[in-house]
Amino acid sequence: MTRRQSIAFMASAAAAAGSIEKYIRFDNGSRVSWGRVEGEQVIPLSNAPYLGGRPLGGKKALKSLKLLVPADPPKVLAVGLNYKSHLGTRVAPKEPEIFYKPTTCLIPAGDPIIIPPGAKNVHYEGELVIVLATGGKNLTPAQAKAAIFGATCGNDVSERDWQNGPQKDLQWWRAKGSDTFGPLGPMLIRDADYDKALLQTRLNNEVVQKQFTSDLLFDCPTIVSYISKYVTLEAGDVIYTGTPGSTKKMSAGDTVEIEIDGLGILRNPIKAG
Amino acid sequence: MTRRQSIAFMASAAAAAGSIEKYIRFDNGSRVSWGRVEGEQVIPLSNAPYLGGRPLGGKKALKSLKLLVPADPPKVLAVGLNYKSHLGTRVAPKEPEIFYKPTTCLIPAGDPIIIPPGAKNVHYEGELVIVLATGGKNLTPAQAKAAIFGATCGNDVSERDWQNGPQKDLQWWRAKGSDTFGPLGPMLIRDADYDKALLQTRLNNEVVQKQFTSDLLFDCPTIVSYISKYVTLEAGDVIYTGTPGSTKKMSAGDTVEIEIDGLGILRNPIKAG
Repeated sequence: MTRRQSIAFMASAAAAAGSIEKYIRFDNGSRVSWGRVEGEQVIPLSNAPYLGGRPLGGKKALKSLKLLVPADPPKVLAVGLNYKSHLGTRVAPKEPEIFYKPTTCLIPAGDPIIIPPGAKNVHYEGELVIVLATGGKNLTPAQAKAAIFGATCGNDVSERDWQNGPQKDLQWWRAKGSDTFGPLGPMLIRDADYDKALLQTRLNNEVVQKQFTSDLLFDCPTIVSYISKYVTLEAGDVIYTGTPGSTKKMSAGDTVEIEIDGLGILRNPIKAG
Repeated sequence: MTRRQSIAFMASAAAAAGSIEKYIRFDNGSRVSWGRVEGEQVIPLSNAPYLGGRPLGGKKALKSLKLLVPADPPKVLAVGLNYKSHLGTRVAPKEPEIFYKPTTCLIPAGDPIIIPPGAKNVHYEGELVIVLATGGKNLTPAQAKAAIFGATCGNDVSERDWQNGPQKDLQWWRAKGSDTFGPLGPMLIRDADYDKALLQTRLNNEVVQKQFTSDLLFDCPTIVSYISKYVTLEAGDVIYTGTPGSTKKMSAGDTVEIEIDGLGILRNPIKAG
């Protein structure tokens, strides 16, 4: 599926879905704008939808727009070891295992994942990603559920040699945080039922990860509630929720797609640095 | 030394120092403002000094202001194992060992470090901290040196049981990133000679860390240059450069001070969560 076909598919799905809301960020000439997707059209908004963004005048054709990352987070958090199928011989954690990715690693659908200098073992990790509407501290699971604005697809790109291999760093700062290691998108979807959705990763059209998000060890409200015991969450914060199964190395020239039912397809080519 | 005495001391030093520039962030009624310190007075600025902030009309008495964190960073990075005296039996790293602290952990001089729920082994780490004027990718050491705006004192507060002990997490997200674990200040100092400055940490007035910043394994331009090979740096980014020697546990009721010659005193009380 090409990028245009992917967007057209998403737009058709949006039109058919009823109450589900779909949002994008895009380059609106001199500035970045949020927009609400209605069929093949996009209605520009005055601000992020979770910050009270109101419709501005005019509409734009979805297919004419350059999509940006559908989030503008103060910070990006991620969960490790959150599917039994990804644990291997490791013991399941008693609490969510959290780490940070820098906001600078985020890229939208369509942009290339660039292999950094010296990297020899860069893997995909297809993930359900949530975006917060509101932040806070010490949120109960019920408050955490209400704080989640919507969801999208993410790829927690990981250099395994820097993460756990022969060039292992003390922490995962570049293994998980190098520029372009945070593909996210294509759209931010509100009110989709993503709790039991099928997540699939395809490498050059071959399905390489396939699991339901209902198999998460810690569900989204539990993750948000747990983080907020220690770290204040903020409106717009992004949380990658973990990857299922095993992963493989990607090489320059490959194309990787993360698809989650109801959330669209996040497609990125791989390029040499 | 009380907070007021500390501020008065800093102001006297500023007046005597000549070309050294001192900046603060403070609560300016309805909004946060940057200001340039001149003696006992503060000149409010229109923006951060590294973003072209210009003097606004009027002056304010320094001692009347509530100091905020003297930085507003897109992201916070830190270096581990960057003094021989802190390595213990560990091998010196070949490259800087980097990790992230979330921006939400930053607190100014005077605010309390709060012991989080369940934390039993919270240590100080006195550190030289730099703030970037400009960002970029693949900076040479010379470019990196030019990108550094100024420096201040930092405390890389660390929960050792979560970092390396019996409750060890996969990553240091809460060990180093819990709310209030990033004391920073009191002021952002430009053009001070902090390359060979004495760094001292005092716990309840007892000196518990004492070393010159010239003993850093990787100096500031090397750290900045190395990070920028992988992660795009941004104007305002904050980098904690590592702690010397050994550290001790802090308890509720304690007071911790980080002093670096020419950069002032960062003083914070410890409180129970």
